[in-house]
Amino acid sequence: MRLGTIYGVGVGPGDPELLTLKAHRLISSAATIAYLAADASDGPRASRARRIVADIIPAGACEIEIRTPMRAARAEAQTAYDRGAAEIAERLETGQDVVVLCEGDPLLYGSFMYLLARLSSRFPAAIVPGVASPMAAAAAVQRPLVARDEPLTILPSTADIEMLETRLRLGGGAALMKLGRRLPDIKRLITRLGLLDRAYYVEAATEAGEIAVPLAEAPETAPYFSMILVVGEDPHAHAH
Amino acid sequence: MRLGTIYGVGVGPGDPELLTLKAHRLISSAATIAYLAADASDGPRASRARRIVADIIPAGACEIEIRTPMRAARAEAQTAYDRGAAEIAERLETGQDVVVLCEGDPLLYGSFMYLLARLSSRFPAAIVPGVASPMAAAAAVQRPLVARDEPLTILPSTADIEMLETRLRLGGGAALMKLGRRLPDIKRLITRLGLLDRAYYVEAATEAGEIAVPLAEAPETAPYFSMILVVGEDPHAHAH
Repeated sequence: MRLGTIYGVGVGPGDPELLTLKAHRLISSAATIAYLAADASDGPRASRARRIVADIIPAGACEIEIRTPMRAARAEAQTAYDRGAAEIAERLETGQDVVVLCEGDPLLYGSFMYLLARLSSRFPAAIVPGVASPMAAAAAVQRPLVARDEPLTILPSTADIEMLETRLRLGGGAALMKLGRRLPDIKRLITRLGLLDRAYYVEAATEAGEIAVPLAEAPETAPYFSMILVVGEDPHAHAH
Repeated sequence: MRLGTIYGVGVGPGDPELLTLKAHRLISSAATIAYLAADASDGPRASRARRIVADIIPAGACEIEIRTPMRAARAEAQTAYDRGAAEIAERLETGQDVVVLCEGDPLLYGSFMYLLARLSSRFPAAIVPGVASPMAAAAAVQRPLVARDEPLTILPSTADIEMLETRLRLGGGAALMKLGRRLPDIKRLITRLGLLDRAYYVEAATEAGEIAVPLAEAPETAPYFSMILVVGEDPHAHAH
């Protein structure tokens, strides 16, 4: 019997028009769609990925919502992925394809990778890359990330502050993702390192409510899906 | 008089189906389209960005090809961007919009930034982010780039080998772009650093002729648009 394929499909940073043609085709013709939804302390959060593509999900498509604990102990999260993978596997075994919706790009910090790790040895898989949020944030501030020989470091703001400092000290461009409550700490670090004049704060890039300002003018509090960009310093790449 | 807008439009890594809906809309309705074409020693190279979208460029669209010297002295390249920007400015001044085609994402090592730096203070600009090649390469090898708190470093292979070594030694995931003739040097470096079992070689990602193999099995020579990925090491993110 033919096995179904698991598709990890990037839906981009937020603007539904930043879906790729391929993502649009796969989602709008899908029979089964899966996505992750975080269980916060105050109840389940609606999936951002699902919201981005809500208008093109076919009527009558079967939807698999995989609830995952937020900030949970690792073991608890792994159990949630086990259950989600098992539910997807049931469909794949009967030859049905499953489209997994992924915010941004599926393989850049996406929880899809935990499903893929559980299923890729038994089922065919295909990944559709998406527009990642650092590129969307750079588009919002209209500043080049990096030019020529400059490195770009993508950093989770949730990491150790010492690690972030080590990386930022090396120079080049940087995107500090998953900002949330780390905003004050990281703003202080960037100021101390003398990077404030190259730093921008971006929230809800490409969506209604987008904020894209110099970091010096950032609001006091930031949602989880916001970021700080430190743009490169190639003199030819920036307007004066 | 109303000024035209300069659009920097990412066309993704190669597969025309990885254009965003927004890029597709802007390109397929554009009156004026600009793109860069490298002048190699053996004659001008056809624009890769133009090739990706060739099928949707409207018949009768005006095309501005900006020839730039390959591996030229910086001053010579800057003169070419001056000329290209002037040609685009002529259109913008008369109220015509200009769509500039950009491989991958416009602000990640894209030459578009040199045009933007020359025009953004005088004309309205808009950037449409695109699928960047590191994400396309990860999709090709079906391996997560980074998970949870891991950093991802995007490196131009053309940079100093000492800088590349410093960055790779810090750990996390890495994407070494613009590989070309640096392949043997960088393969040796990755082997010496003990990273070979996490390293992949990717060429022509998402296009006909795609190669996506462990670095140990890479071909002897690599084109400029190829890359090495060093994937992260989160044990939960990878199949065993």
